[in-house]
Amino acid sequence: MKIVALAGGVGGAKLAHGLAQILPPEDLTVIVNTGDDFEHLGMYICPDLDTVCYTLAGLANPETGWGRVNETWNTIANIEKLGGPNWFRLGDQDIATHLERTRRMKAGKSLSEITKDFCTAWGIKQTVLPMSDSPVRTIVDTDEGELAFQEYFVHRHCEPRVKGFRFDGIDVAESTVGAKEAIESAEAIVICPSNPWVSVDPILRVIKKINKPVIAVSPIIGGQTVKGPAAKMYTELGIEPSALAVAEHYRNLLIGFVLDTVDMQLSDKIKTRTLVTNTFMNTFEDRARLAADVLNFIGSL
Amino acid sequence: MKIVALAGGVGGAKLAHGLAQILPPEDLTVIVNTGDDFEHLGMYICPDLDTVCYTLAGLANPETGWGRVNETWNTIANIEKLGGPNWFRLGDQDIATHLERTRRMKAGKSLSEITKDFCTAWGIKQTVLPMSDSPVRTIVDTDEGELAFQEYFVHRHCEPRVKGFRFDGIDVAESTVGAKEAIESAEAIVICPSNPWVSVDPILRVIKKINKPVIAVSPIIGGQTVKGPAAKMYTELGIEPSALAVAEHYRNLLIGFVLDTVDMQLSDKIKTRTLVTNTFMNTFEDRARLAADVLNFIGSL
Repeated sequence: MKIVALAGGVGGAKLAHGLAQILPPEDLTVIVNTGDDFEHLGMYICPDLDTVCYTLAGLANPETGWGRVNETWNTIANIEKLGGPNWFRLGDQDIATHLERTRRMKAGKSLSEITKDFCTAWGIKQTVLPMSDSPVRTIVDTDEGELAFQEYFVHRHCEPRVKGFRFDGIDVAESTVGAKEAIESAEAIVICPSNPWVSVDPILRVIKKINKPVIAVSPIIGGQTVKGPAAKMYTELGIEPSALAVAEHYRNLLIGFVLDTVDMQLSDKIKTRTLVTNTFMNTFEDRARLAADVLNFIGSL
Repeated sequence: MKIVALAGGVGGAKLAHGLAQILPPEDLTVIVNTGDDFEHLGMYICPDLDTVCYTLAGLANPETGWGRVNETWNTIANIEKLGGPNWFRLGDQDIATHLERTRRMKAGKSLSEITKDFCTAWGIKQTVLPMSDSPVRTIVDTDEGELAFQEYFVHRHCEPRVKGFRFDGIDVAESTVGAKEAIESAEAIVICPSNPWVSVDPILRVIKKINKPVIAVSPIIGGQTVKGPAAKMYTELGIEPSALAVAEHYRNLLIGFVLDTVDMQLSDKIKTRTLVTNTFMNTFEDRARLAADVLNFIGSL
């Protein structure tokens, strides 16, 4: 079964890794949000793309979900000593990714070409694609004014109250050729448990039209997120954070929705077929189990 | 005694460190070659300036003379895994210097302002100045064509035969304000045992006129250099490499010349006052001893 997964950072990467444990590599394409990419210390940084790649390659830090395992922090510690910006935690191994990507982009390579080469170097057999080779920049409108995404997310710890989102460049951004082809040949599209507002919406807006069955996995469990500000965003936007709210978010797209057992009572209110299962992914086995549940669910629809 | 030292990389840094061990900090200014600065992996790298600063700060690797002590190499190892350029060995701590410097330059700070701030952060009390805030780029003309300095020096291991040198930008490069003032108030200028062709000549050309007593320390000992290609360059340019050749190189400038005891027999042929002493600097004590010899020699002239 050929599957396209749409993913943001940590949560999306985990389910993508689960799918990768089950599907033959040629049957899985992961299209990743690039709206929170940014330039920092002269480097072009793609947090979600790197989280997905590191996770698929077995290079991710299992504690944090982001960054590299067995990482060292000598560069950032020395930048800090020089009085430079230290709010974005860059590990020494991770910096190699950003420096080499930036070098190649300046040499005229596209982000998708670079990602393909990096996946090969890291031994990733699945296809990982940025949602677009054109820059899209998520801007968070808050009670303190507009903030670039990483400024809001990392520097300000998601503290300012959210009023809305804007995706600079999204109207002219085309999805990558690979993404179009992967969707064309996919049997289903899986929206991973990523932030609907800032991880999935940009991907959906770039892809524009999906003529394939779409199922989504709720990133909200018992009104909360495992990681990240999705629940806080729903609240600040005046919507009660819940799996139901997520299902409503994607309502015109879905043929199926996956929610956690703790939210079982919401299942009846959701206007599409649902699968109620354990959606927590603490271990590698949890990821594979949820992926298997999702694939079986797709098979049943 | 207020001293201005002109220095390139390793050899120059060692004597500067010797002088720093003896002189009150406010009496020593080191003007450093920036002709071998270059951009690599998007970073603005100043090899000589960093070597001088790391050495004065006690942060230099005592084995290599360049780079940082207790360095780790995780970034470059990962750049290598990605198929990126690995010929210029960048340590993780060292990369912090380049990233933060590049960030500040892009924010409009001058190289001398940045160097001053970095010296403060590293606890360096002496004044270290780039020779200029304008870019000067040493180009080595070789039997394989023109090569940017680091391409010749590090990437090609000084293998191509040298035919000459060119310093892009030198005609418009002004010496820094601090450098002019330091020379104005100095009692003497010490040309450190650095490469006359590619480390000292660019500094002298930027400074243009020196109305102060100048003494030089030979970087060539027994026809060889302790480090670097100076002797090889002399040979390839048709000049026998020797302390005498170095003295001739600077002939119109000098009121004194310091050469090693192994070259004692050359002393009579040198057309300026000479000091014959042990110029090897293996230990920190050697550096201080040579610096003391040089200062006493200046006092005697």
